[in-house]
Amino acid sequence: MATTLAFLGLGRMGQAMVHRLRQAGFQLRVWDRTPGRATPGLGLEVCNTPREAATGAPFVMTSLANDEAVETVTFGPDGFLDAMSEDAVHVGASTISFSLAKVLTERHAAKHTHYIGAPVLGRPEAAERGELFVLAGGEPEVVRRSQPIFDAIARATIVADTAAQAHITKVIANLIMANTIELLGETTALGEKAGIAPEKLIDMLGRTIVGSPVFKGYGGRIARSEYEPAAFRLELGLKDVSLALAAGDQLRAPLPLASLVHDHMIEAIAKGHAQKDWAALAMIPREAAGLPHS
Amino acid sequence: MATTLAFLGLGRMGQAMVHRLRQAGFQLRVWDRTPGRATPGLGLEVCNTPREAATGAPFVMTSLANDEAVETVTFGPDGFLDAMSEDAVHVGASTISFSLAKVLTERHAAKHTHYIGAPVLGRPEAAERGELFVLAGGEPEVVRRSQPIFDAIARATIVADTAAQAHITKVIANLIMANTIELLGETTALGEKAGIAPEKLIDMLGRTIVGSPVFKGYGGRIARSEYEPAAFRLELGLKDVSLALAAGDQLRAPLPLASLVHDHMIEAIAKGHAQKDWAALAMIPREAAGLPHS
Amino acid sequence: MATTLAFLGLGRMGQAMVHRLRQAGFQLRVWDRTPGRATPGLGLEVCNTPREAATGAPFVMTSLANDEAVETVTFGPDGFLDAMSEDAVHVGASTISFSLAKVLTERHAAKHTHYIGAPVLGRPEAAERGELFVLAGGEPEVVRRSQPIFDAIARATIVADTAAQAHITKVIANLIMANTIELLGETTALGEKAGIAPEKLIDMLGRTIVGSPVFKGYGGRIARSEYEPAAFRLELGLKDVSLALAAGDQLRAPLPLASLVHDHMIEAIAKGHAQKDWAALAMIPREAAGLPHS
Amino acid sequence: MATTLAFLGLGRMGQAMVHRLRQAGFQLRVWDRTPGRATPGLGLEVCNTPREAATGAPFVMTSLANDEAVETVTFGPDGFLDAMSEDAVHVGASTISFSLAKVLTERHAAKHTHYIGAPVLGRPEAAERGELFVLAGGEPEVVRRSQPIFDAIARATIVADTAAQAHITKVIANLIMANTIELLGETTALGEKAGIAPEKLIDMLGRTIVGSPVFKGYGGRIARSEYEPAAFRLELGLKDVSLALAAGDQLRAPLPLASLVHDHMIEAIAKGHAQKDWAALAMIPREAAGLPHS
Repeated sequence: MATTLAFLGLGRMGQAMVHRLRQAGFQLRVWDRTPGRATPGLGLEVCNTPREAATGAPFVMTSLANDEAVETVTFGPDGFLDAMSEDAVHVGASTISFSLAKVLTERHAAKHTHYIGAPVLGRPEAAERGELFVLAGGEPEVVRRSQPIFDAIARATIVADTAAQAHITKVIANLIMANTIELLGETTALGEKAGIAPEKLIDMLGRTIVGSPVFKGYGGRIARSEYEPAAFRLELGLKDVSLALAAGDQLRAPLPLASLVHDHMIEAIAKGHAQKDWAALAMIPREAAGLPHS
Repeated sequence: MATTLAFLGLGRMGQAMVHRLRQAGFQLRVWDRTPGRATPGLGLEVCNTPREAATGAPFVMTSLANDEAVETVTFGPDGFLDAMSEDAVHVGASTISFSLAKVLTERHAAKHTHYIGAPVLGRPEAAERGELFVLAGGEPEVVRRSQPIFDAIARATIVADTAAQAHITKVIANLIMANTIELLGETTALGEKAGIAPEKLIDMLGRTIVGSPVFKGYGGRIARSEYEPAAFRLELGLKDVSLALAAGDQLRAPLPLASLVHDHMIEAIAKGHAQKDWAALAMIPREAAGLPHS
Repeated sequence: MATTLAFLGLGRMGQAMVHRLRQAGFQLRVWDRTPGRATPGLGLEVCNTPREAATGAPFVMTSLANDEAVETVTFGPDGFLDAMSEDAVHVGASTISFSLAKVLTERHAAKHTHYIGAPVLGRPEAAERGELFVLAGGEPEVVRRSQPIFDAIARATIVADTAAQAHITKVIANLIMANTIELLGETTALGEKAGIAPEKLIDMLGRTIVGSPVFKGYGGRIARSEYEPAAFRLELGLKDVSLALAAGDQLRAPLPLASLVHDHMIEAIAKGHAQKDWAALAMIPREAAGLPHS
Repeated sequence: MATTLAFLGLGRMGQAMVHRLRQAGFQLRVWDRTPGRATPGLGLEVCNTPREAATGAPFVMTSLANDEAVETVTFGPDGFLDAMSEDAVHVGASTISFSLAKVLTERHAAKHTHYIGAPVLGRPEAAERGELFVLAGGEPEVVRRSQPIFDAIARATIVADTAAQAHITKVIANLIMANTIELLGETTALGEKAGIAPEKLIDMLGRTIVGSPVFKGYGGRIARSEYEPAAFRLELGLKDVSLALAAGDQLRAPLPLASLVHDHMIEAIAKGHAQKDWAALAMIPREAAGLPHS
């Protein structure tokens, strides 16, 4: 018999996941704050509240914008926590803070339900092809129980020891990407002032040991100044770098690279680029070097 | 008949290159500031001055510590520039400044000789196996003429448009590595304070899209606090980051990430780590987070 | 007849203000979260809740640790807002965020009461002598009405246009102080490595145009490594620098100097200095230069 | 009988000093790289080379642009060092590096002449009124012997222990000013985004304990965007901050605030502001906050 999965949050990423999970044979009960984002059909029921969707389901999966949305959907007036069956599992795919991940773990444990941190790396297109990376953390038995969900959406499941550790690892991965973008911005600006076209520099460096997939991918975007349409908006990138800084504040670990990237993201947003792809962060060191935008 | 190549500078990297070039059939005439670094033998003659080594050779290759050494060996009282035959080629494998590379290009052109920038990426062990990356720049015909030299030492020759651009690309590659080390230091410290062992964090991230060979290689060293013996000393790393900053000053391109890495390198040297591997830079954010050294 | 003033928050600063206000003839109704911080006496009544203290009083003054405390005391279950008489004035002396200051202004206006931002510069000893600086902002008529309160505690009232502007100006003043401490730390470390004793450097510079009272005051503390007992604890300093960064985030104004100071404060706290005077921030650049602590 | 003083370097500052020294009764023998900058007259002789000017003079004073100029004038082909009489004094008023100051001290000692570091704080107008601050360092007896020179140009002589310490203290004073400008730029931008006009913010803060003469002076310029004509050009400011960073490199004392200011100065110059007053550095954080220039 098909496993029932309540899925909360139908943004681009959520919709792509729902598509994969349905194909994998899950019976979905979906909800989004904005009505009309899903059409009922075979294997897909549309619900009016998080609570309604979660009632009786062994799995509840959240794919939401930020801490506040996860808190509202989980603990709020129409939140699902109180409606969950004993031993049911909350699979949290959103990028949330280290501290909220700890709270979720504790609150679920107190209710005899489970929280699994399961943030993902990759873009909606990767989700549609089932090629995300999942960073999964929580009680080992419950992570194993959730594996069919991860298999439906991801090419690899990387297992962390706890939910909070899965979430902070995701935030660190995004911080590394943001730092790579800044670094590409600074170095392509320097290269250009030395007479090297950005494409040429990215190509040369990408063929050496410093080239990662992220380096080459963002390098190409930056070389072509290809910032619209956004695959991941700058203001979302700022959110994730801010989550890294918040964790650093809480855990007392200074992150000067993150501070610098944060300052440049604020600058980029102050200059009107919030809706551009976060690769547009590279415009800031470019402007600082006195270079025109193409 | 074997091609004669004057090779100046017999540090670890120079010795490894000489070994490969000799095997490839070059007739070597070597010199080092410190006598006794080479033993004469079949295909290898030891000379007393740079000038003596270069006299009559179609190729002169330099593998020296810094700008000052290259200037002395090239332009100084015993320097080789005036002794070069017309149309001979100076292949500069040292990591030098953008501005010295321009001066070398001009001075050679005025003498009807040629300067090819040919800095390398990789460690002496890679050189011994002929697995360096060469970043080669200069007149295209002269780069082609020098190709047998590059083939003897490198797995790939990446061609830049000019000698100065080859040199600044090398400096940028090292800046990217130094930044990666700092980033690994900051993120493993944050991870550790969140309860994630550094090895575990490096392993998790290394399996996603953010992992480059440099990320994994230095990540492992940092996770094991393996800083001695040094493969590349911190004080040499500082030299290269300083070359990036000097180019940024000259070309008017601010490099705040390089400034930050520079400040931490100064700190690491002030604390007595100059002779450690430059991966020891990661100790600084670790200390800043209040973590003990293992 | 004496004016009644409810005073909420009896920390060191609050107690010093209460002392001055009582001497100036106000009839005080005081409350603190921790009972027993005040003894009833002539002109001083001790209350059980913020609500009880504020009932019927034309002025309610808060001197509390942070946003959360002000929110609880104002809006919480025992909060005073609903108990205020029409046209009564809330004088907020706490250092709070720009955004909370705006919320307070709006919520009071909706209730037909008034919010005056009145953060102070100076230490409790200055408060005891009536020598604080008050940064007062709000409706001009209400600021004027509150002037006897300011006259009791301050040597000067500096008037901002709005409550939120008064609060952000206070935060900026503290940011300038924190930056001065960092700068003193960096420059005295450099000077010491050049053979100049910190006292000597502070003395020399303090006699030129760069010397401000803050420069000389903190310079002396730093030269003597006099960090305990704390006049203003490092963790409180971090709170204020974080308020500056939060305002910068919200208003989209990057503050790289604040980011840097913030990172060093986190480092100082990670190293165990949270309870020292915030001048101890200067230990961080000193350690970074490899200097021992005296 | 009047004391003879060779004065080398007739920029705006040099001319102002010459004017004061002549009034004070010194017999001047002047030289500048650019002929025609002085007209011979009573008490003022114009010379063709530094060497000619210094021959037989008990004092030689230099007021030159940078290390290179001082080296050329002192040690170069027409340099004065070899022409000095035994026991004569070189009074160095230029802002030079810590390391050159050490070299000058040693070279003079070897020649049985003396080097006094005597950099000045203040602008040419202050020099004309004799209101500079002199930071004087060297052998105490020789500093005393030079006092009449300082009295002619300065309102106060602040005595350091050595010439090199006098010079680095000057560099630190300029670093503090540059940092103040950056801080004013960041905080006035934040203030403006919070609705506070820069003049208003500077005025409010200037009346509290954080206000120094430098704070108020540059605050006014920045509030009025008054960057031309330059009193002290941005590119000269960059030179001085770079001297601080060079000293930090040499002495192993990281200066992250200086690095940050340096990066913003490079940015300001990349954007075409090299010839503006260095207060124009404040344009950079202003632009970063997305604010227009008035």
